[in-house]
Amino acid sequence: MMFSQSVGPSIKALAFDVFGTVVDWRTGIAREAAAAGHERGIAGEWEKFADAWRSGYAPAMDRVRRGELPWMNIDALHRIILDAIADEFGLAGLDEVQRTHLNRAWHRLDPWPDVIRGLTRLKPRFVITTLSNGNFSLLTNMAKRAGLPWDCIVSAELLGRYKPDPETYRGTAKLLGIDPAELMLVACHPDDLRGAARAGCRTAYVLRPMERGPGSAPYAHTADEFDLTASDFVDLAQRLGA
Amino acid sequence: MMFSQSVGPSIKALAFDVFGTVVDWRTGIAREAAAAGHERGIAGEWEKFADAWRSGYAPAMDRVRRGELPWMNIDALHRIILDAIADEFGLAGLDEVQRTHLNRAWHRLDPWPDVIRGLTRLKPRFVITTLSNGNFSLLTNMAKRAGLPWDCIVSAELLGRYKPDPETYRGTAKLLGIDPAELMLVACHPDDLRGAARAGCRTAYVLRPMERGPGSAPYAHTADEFDLTASDFVDLAQRLGA
Repeated sequence: MMFSQSVGPSIKALAFDVFGTVVDWRTGIAREAAAAGHERGIAGEWEKFADAWRSGYAPAMDRVRRGELPWMNIDALHRIILDAIADEFGLAGLDEVQRTHLNRAWHRLDPWPDVIRGLTRLKPRFVITTLSNGNFSLLTNMAKRAGLPWDCIVSAELLGRYKPDPETYRGTAKLLGIDPAELMLVACHPDDLRGAARAGCRTAYVLRPMERGPGSAPYAHTADEFDLTASDFVDLAQRLGA
Repeated sequence: MMFSQSVGPSIKALAFDVFGTVVDWRTGIAREAAAAGHERGIAGEWEKFADAWRSGYAPAMDRVRRGELPWMNIDALHRIILDAIADEFGLAGLDEVQRTHLNRAWHRLDPWPDVIRGLTRLKPRFVITTLSNGNFSLLTNMAKRAGLPWDCIVSAELLGRYKPDPETYRGTAKLLGIDPAELMLVACHPDDLRGAARAGCRTAYVLRPMERGPGSAPYAHTADEFDLTASDFVDLAQRLGA
């Protein structure tokens, strides 16, 4: 799909979803959980552990959205989920220091191989920022460790709402001093992109077929539902003329 | 002054004041105003124009603090001041587009010569962030243009209060996931540093004798009032062992 000439020149900033789109959470969490398990002599199914941890994330945010939980950041939500699943995976014996360390594995995830190269190409042409439900310190620590060249860090934590609430996309544009139509969300999750489109932003769908592991089903979406589709961040840069 | 061994290892992040501490606002604003004047054939006293613009800044923030003005960001406050002083300096004829452009001169300020070198040394050892009353987009655009290697952008705009309100320093530490005692404010203004100290943060006073032009009086402060004093950012890096 070629990128429309009428859209490209009007985009001033790109906001990137992070978990799945920028970093490979499944491999990273499984690696750190395996290390924690190894110290205790446990040979667990750590990809399943990563999947279980991640699968608790959307329901936990929904509880915050519905007001069943007070506003809390993702570090706090991740910890609630970790405590709920630790027993099942043989990690009940982790003490407070070990749990805190494992919980911060989400700060230490690695980017997909194309990410740094793509962002480095995009940066001279666009303001590039995160727009993640991950908390501000998580995103800052992740960027520092991985060398992600963001111009700034934007988190749902700054806006007091979680994606896909339209106010998160509009709030990001406002912080950047631009109109929603001048902001493009880059994400591998159609529901996130649909939220951005409802808020008046542009949308770039990036395919991350390995996000949920080999053989996982692609997300349902219709052709041309988004402004562009890219196979990775280098392809995204190419399509945006960067 | 040597840096105490008991303080250094506990610091995790450095938050930098920006106007005056990182960038030379007086030279930059005078340069852009001179360009605006030149187009209109006006040979003004542009350093005085810069001083007049800057001197309206603290009173404008005070009006927001007292509730006489609703919360507005620095771009908006700068514009109110610009409109108030334009006549006096022969710039009454600037149209809306020209005023908007000149107002954004605050996004295009240059750093002092030691800044990039010092920040580059500090970055591997500490999280380095802005903590400025300047708005988020201003700080983001400035960093992008000048190549300032921040790990993240923190602005009073994110916290809904202006420095030296203690909540701005505490709020920055909270966003970074650290204790106030693990955050050091770096600034060339004693009142900013005193606000940080009241909030429980560490303080580094950087001398910027040219901030307000040649021959301007140094700020009053007592010896050892701050945790350290540095002549510039390279000296700061040296004193912090970075």
